[in-house]
Amino acid sequence: MNAVHDPLTPIAPWHHRAQSLLGQRVDHIDTPALVVDLDAMERNLAHMAAYARAHNLRLRPHAKMHKSAEIARLQMAHGAVGVCVQKTDEAIALAMGGVTDITITNEVIAEAKLQRLACAVRDLPTRFGIAVDSAVGVARLAQALQEAQVVGDARIDVLVEIDVGQGRCGVAPGEAAVDLTRLIAQHPVLRFAGLQAYHGGAQHRRDPAERAQAIAEAAWAAALTRERLLAAGFEVPLITGAGTGTFVLETASHVWGELQVGSYLFMDADYARNESAPLAPQFEHALFVKSQVMSRGKEHAVCDAGHKSHAIDSGLPMVWSPPGLVFANGGDEHGLLRAAYAGQPLSLPQLGDTVWLVPGHCDPTVNLYDVMIGVRGGLVDGKVERVIRVDARGARG
Amino acid sequence: MNAVHDPLTPIAPWHHRAQSLLGQRVDHIDTPALVVDLDAMERNLAHMAAYARAHNLRLRPHAKMHKSAEIARLQMAHGAVGVCVQKTDEAIALAMGGVTDITITNEVIAEAKLQRLACAVRDLPTRFGIAVDSAVGVARLAQALQEAQVVGDARIDVLVEIDVGQGRCGVAPGEAAVDLTRLIAQHPVLRFAGLQAYHGGAQHRRDPAERAQAIAEAAWAAALTRERLLAAGFEVPLITGAGTGTFVLETASHVWGELQVGSYLFMDADYARNESAPLAPQFEHALFVKSQVMSRGKEHAVCDAGHKSHAIDSGLPMVWSPPGLVFANGGDEHGLLRAAYAGQPLSLPQLGDTVWLVPGHCDPTVNLYDVMIGVRGGLVDGKVERVIRVDARGARG
Repeated sequence: MNAVHDPLTPIAPWHHRAQSLLGQRVDHIDTPALVVDLDAMERNLAHMAAYARAHNLRLRPHAKMHKSAEIARLQMAHGAVGVCVQKTDEAIALAMGGVTDITITNEVIAEAKLQRLACAVRDLPTRFGIAVDSAVGVARLAQALQEAQVVGDARIDVLVEIDVGQGRCGVAPGEAAVDLTRLIAQHPVLRFAGLQAYHGGAQHRRDPAERAQAIAEAAWAAALTRERLLAAGFEVPLITGAGTGTFVLETASHVWGELQVGSYLFMDADYARNESAPLAPQFEHALFVKSQVMSRGKEHAVCDAGHKSHAIDSGLPMVWSPPGLVFANGGDEHGLLRAAYAGQPLSLPQLGDTVWLVPGHCDPTVNLYDVMIGVRGGLVDGKVERVIRVDARGARG
Repeated sequence: MNAVHDPLTPIAPWHHRAQSLLGQRVDHIDTPALVVDLDAMERNLAHMAAYARAHNLRLRPHAKMHKSAEIARLQMAHGAVGVCVQKTDEAIALAMGGVTDITITNEVIAEAKLQRLACAVRDLPTRFGIAVDSAVGVARLAQALQEAQVVGDARIDVLVEIDVGQGRCGVAPGEAAVDLTRLIAQHPVLRFAGLQAYHGGAQHRRDPAERAQAIAEAAWAAALTRERLLAAGFEVPLITGAGTGTFVLETASHVWGELQVGSYLFMDADYARNESAPLAPQFEHALFVKSQVMSRGKEHAVCDAGHKSHAIDSGLPMVWSPPGLVFANGGDEHGLLRAAYAGQPLSLPQLGDTVWLVPGHCDPTVNLYDVMIGVRGGLVDGKVERVIRVDARGARG
């Protein structure tokens, strides 16, 4: 059972193979592959940047979605103040890729992770932020910074996360947040940066009225907490949160000062299933799985993309092209394609034909890939312009 | 948007970090991590090897599950004749890792993939096999071998896949398989190796009677096809198939000569939900996600493993330890832990406590990780004995 190869060098040549695609036409991309329509992505990028500017809001897109330093830097070049991530190792991977302002919108308790973060704060030219929801979290963070000899005032931004309705992380709105802020204030190395107030559960409620109700309650909880903090003598520099499914509502509330939208850039099939809210900007699908037919039955075709090629936690992919087909689960490596409507004249794709899928959920789909193939000029006649590395793929620590 | 780093070198240091764990106690493994209980895995390994020997069956475990050359070689050291994979790039990655007999139990139509396979047949000291279910597939395979100047007779094994009830790939049982075999026989470079007859859909039917019925029908279809082939003058060297959920049934039928079981080695939560069939050997859970609590509510704890740490296509993970908890979906990066029964005395784990999960489905879970941490001596007091690389992670082409 001795290793035949150097265990530190991946055998698989995916990165190298993808580089050879630069300048090639779309039909040269082998399948399954994760393809970004750069034109659509850039329209989405510009659209959201303009929205944030028009509403005088800070934009801090969630990089947990794309996990790419290149895209994070692109977002910042278009006016984003920085990006968010969920994991320490995502933060470090992106910081090493040149991203200069990163907030971990999540709690970190593990001492090993806090040590890594403290070293990054000390050594990298990146501004970091982090969320806390416990006294243990504050104490361990301060301890790790001290042990790494991070000196000076306000070396890391600390957000107190409040549970605004999702029932996951965060302290209860109100006094509990004040108590935690007092603990933060005891450590000059920490800077109390405000409140993390994100309602993840609201993003995918189909009915705009339900989303509006959830965010109204979240706004009330965040505003109440701010009042309590002000009354206790704390400044509240920022309330940050919101996602692609609800950011128009957070904006309208005037409670939030920063938007943490992520999916707007690529738009997945699940977000497309939301009924649109009034006044919400429309975004285009920009992320696709290119697959092809590798087996044919009389009434079905089988494509070479299963759930090792796209995440199915938020539903199966939508068949983007050819039209008239639905995708049924064919397991880890296969997708079953059938006519969308019984009795419809059947024109199933042939062996070798290309099938474009829109993944159900972009974040965990991107996390399956080492690279995204960036195409300019559309999915039919376009060419590969860049290979975008998913720097933080597999960064879950 | 210029790359800051060499685009061919992954930034993320996961491989290196894992190496530093060798010899360390289990509690030093940072979370979330994919951990193999080597003792349990080796008992499963020995158990299945003994079963195949006792029934005079060839054992060809499915490496799509573990994607690791090291484990494939271990299986072969314990009597397996080789392994299966589903994808060309899995085959190449494992062959480069020293695996000497690999069957692709799946159709390959893309010329680019067949070219890669042909080069591997030509250049690597590995015996390859592949499944076909179309005339196009046979013609393109022969063409690719010719273009790669693969000369000589019977340089690759070709299995005709028949659809034995899953309704995915494969020709209809009977004459269609004979027609395809005639095409294979026209190319001396191809060796007709028999029938691929796998019923994936039967593996996870909960009721043993339903599984028995499905495999009885599959056996009938495979036996009929063999009769037709014999009548047409072909030898049928092998009928291969079966999975962890049904292999006792294929064995009892005496139709199959080779077992393609995969999950037996690790056993996931979904297989554990199958009602056991009579006479079926019992396998142990050997694959775990180690996670820890990073937030606490009054009636729930939040662990740091969501569906970027385990696949949920076959259901959520089972909480292995501490006892009495159920896992609820907390999104990409979080798991919600609650008391399994309402009214049960609540003893939720504390911040930082370790939580061991058994993934719902091992195959796509392993595919999320670069390495598996092999532990000897149990999950409580054990030590890290080896870091097992997932060589074909992300190999989907």
